[in-house]
Amino acid sequence: MDALGKGHPPDVVVLPANTEEVAAIARVCNAQRVPLVVRGAGTGFTGGAVPTYGGVLLSMERLNRIIEVDELNLLAVVEPNVINADLQRAVEKVGLLYPPDPASLHQSTIGGNVAECAGGPRAFKYGTTKRYILALEAVLPTGEIINTGSKAVKNVVGYDLTQLLVGSEGTLAIITTITVRLVPKPPANATMLATFGSIQSAVDAVSELIRRRVVPAAVELIDSDSLAAVHDNLSADLVPRGTAAALIVEVDGTPRGVDEDLDRVMDACRSAGAKDMSRAATEAERETIWSVRRQISVALKATGLVKINHDVVVPRGRVPELFDAIGEMKRTYGLRVASFGHAGDGNIHVNLLLTPGDAGEQARAKEAERFLFTRVIALEGSISGEHGIGFAKAPYLLLELSGEEIALMKRVKAAFDPNGILNPGKIFP
Amino acid sequence: MDALGKGHPPDVVVLPANTEEVAAIARVCNAQRVPLVVRGAGTGFTGGAVPTYGGVLLSMERLNRIIEVDELNLLAVVEPNVINADLQRAVEKVGLLYPPDPASLHQSTIGGNVAECAGGPRAFKYGTTKRYILALEAVLPTGEIINTGSKAVKNVVGYDLTQLLVGSEGTLAIITTITVRLVPKPPANATMLATFGSIQSAVDAVSELIRRRVVPAAVELIDSDSLAAVHDNLSADLVPRGTAAALIVEVDGTPRGVDEDLDRVMDACRSAGAKDMSRAATEAERETIWSVRRQISVALKATGLVKINHDVVVPRGRVPELFDAIGEMKRTYGLRVASFGHAGDGNIHVNLLLTPGDAGEQARAKEAERFLFTRVIALEGSISGEHGIGFAKAPYLLLELSGEEIALMKRVKAAFDPNGILNPGKIFP
Repeated sequence: MDALGKGHPPDVVVLPANTEEVAAIARVCNAQRVPLVVRGAGTGFTGGAVPTYGGVLLSMERLNRIIEVDELNLLAVVEPNVINADLQRAVEKVGLLYPPDPASLHQSTIGGNVAECAGGPRAFKYGTTKRYILALEAVLPTGEIINTGSKAVKNVVGYDLTQLLVGSEGTLAIITTITVRLVPKPPANATMLATFGSIQSAVDAVSELIRRRVVPAAVELIDSDSLAAVHDNLSADLVPRGTAAALIVEVDGTPRGVDEDLDRVMDACRSAGAKDMSRAATEAERETIWSVRRQISVALKATGLVKINHDVVVPRGRVPELFDAIGEMKRTYGLRVASFGHAGDGNIHVNLLLTPGDAGEQARAKEAERFLFTRVIALEGSISGEHGIGFAKAPYLLLELSGEEIALMKRVKAAFDPNGILNPGKIFP
Repeated sequence: MDALGKGHPPDVVVLPANTEEVAAIARVCNAQRVPLVVRGAGTGFTGGAVPTYGGVLLSMERLNRIIEVDELNLLAVVEPNVINADLQRAVEKVGLLYPPDPASLHQSTIGGNVAECAGGPRAFKYGTTKRYILALEAVLPTGEIINTGSKAVKNVVGYDLTQLLVGSEGTLAIITTITVRLVPKPPANATMLATFGSIQSAVDAVSELIRRRVVPAAVELIDSDSLAAVHDNLSADLVPRGTAAALIVEVDGTPRGVDEDLDRVMDACRSAGAKDMSRAATEAERETIWSVRRQISVALKATGLVKINHDVVVPRGRVPELFDAIGEMKRTYGLRVASFGHAGDGNIHVNLLLTPGDAGEQARAKEAERFLFTRVIALEGSISGEHGIGFAKAPYLLLELSGEEIALMKRVKAAFDPNGILNPGKIFP
């Protein structure tokens, strides 16, 4: 199981101690045609680390060392089971930053983040995991150990297998060592929360701030249903009850630079009709602002409803149309829905909230899912921004990709895994 | 021919007007097993756009439209033959920036930039071409039209074929439409030039400024031989004769932010022992500073010598060791060498300068080439940072990649191009 809550048990669990043991396990599985599934912390939302046909589960538990933090060359070398937050802490100690910050950062592993190409709030300015992977050591399902990329920040020697492995959901190779790129940690940041009378004006504020040439580190949007869940189950004194939408914006840079930037952010929010704005003056106030966003998942779980998280993404300017589609979905299928996410990226987490055991609601949720994905594609978006396809979204792949594109991807898969032993049943319908 | 000055003529040149015509040409070539080579402006340094076996040369000349600049979504859609500088101008008109800025930007095309994953001075802060490609329309050598990625900035649906095509040197598919990501153009920039008594202290200055948490837009290093060529053939009043090394640093951001940053850059240069520093106060002074860098290639050509440009890259902290290796190469093989490039990225262009018609020097240059590449690999670097492999560096691929890695890349190639008709004789030895 993972965060999706579905799956099948493996027949065997193995815990290799090093790359050579991983290679030996792969060779045995390949020779015997046994399914081999790699697992980190199991925090995924689409079943990527969950067996679908039994077989061998390869746990990365013991490959958990930070091998090197190289300040001069702005890089770190880690084993796959290092927890994201542990890497963050290790590099921040020496004044550096590893930008990818998925909500699961205290549980999820760098290996899992690489396999799924995890995002997070800072992706607006900094990009997702793929932008920070310089080199990989990996084991092919046939047992060969390969190295991709290098410690140099540029490398155009042969095909970019590094980026092909990032986001390949454990279906192409078993990642055993990861070289990540770091950036200097900006000396200052500034954070604000603004409330709006509608989703439309919150999104207008995002467009306005881009028009004013600000590139915030994060731009997070929270809708009324998500805010209500936080109010009902936790606390959100910053946001009055009944608020239609809230925006959290954080900028980073030099001390005077962030002041200038936050002024422009607040101008943008004001001109888009913000009702109320709070600017954090202390680190504690910054934490209070971020806690509104961080509490949502917990608050939604506290409702006692079953939460089905859809991670859709559209070009940023089309977020209002996406919310129109979400509204239509709510009405047509009679469902509770709470939405929030990375507005700057057009990446919104649409959470269907279902009464446990209500088969009718579950059936309507299935239909709603297809409705939502079809609309997202029509808006030139994508059915997954950062959670991947796994087995949960595999039935919908043809909504986004053509038969020829899928056939090509399957030929690429065969180039890595001729016997199809690695993570079978994922991505492809 | 391209900038490398070597090649074989094609049998036929075709100039398709649209994607469908490209697909029809591919189908004919594939059916008849005829080599098919795609060509943009032909400014490459490794022969990527040059036929090696005759066949059909597919010129992209007529696919030269900027289809769309979308301010709200920070993207542009272009055909492959759009010149880099024309795209820069079009997006800067609306306050946006397309960061990749190869030295060839006034001649080279976006399609060629994508095929080779072009870099440039701004890559230190902004990254190379790959970071700016959101989506591609491409024609497979077998004639199918595929679309990769989407207009959304995040997309983890299936394998990342977009990044696999970027830098694939025209060997996997024929790119027909490119969706690029743009960023808001920073409102201000500031530029300085510093001179140093040794390469080592110039590189120390780069390490120092990173220690001070500055992320300049560009950090360019010029060695004494390159400076001498500029002095002899053009003009460089800013840099006294006999200077061992010069560094050009540009920062961008908010007006007050760039002031703060440039102060920190100058502190860093001072503490690393800079001899002289000039800070541009006007746009004209900024141009004067950059002209020192931009004149190098012309000045080296004006020497009348044959210039062989090697585009090597090492982890930034190992640039002094790279210059040690270059010094050893000069002495061992008795060659003139001028080096300059993107010090922030560890990406140095090492130019061998040969007397035309001197067979002995040419033979020594061949040996020197292998010496240099072997040392670069030993320094954990790569034999190409931004120019690609083409046919010029194909004999050296095994220095950097293992037999298994090359075999895997060939299987990926076969997944796209089962009959091997697309740009044969490139990348692989």
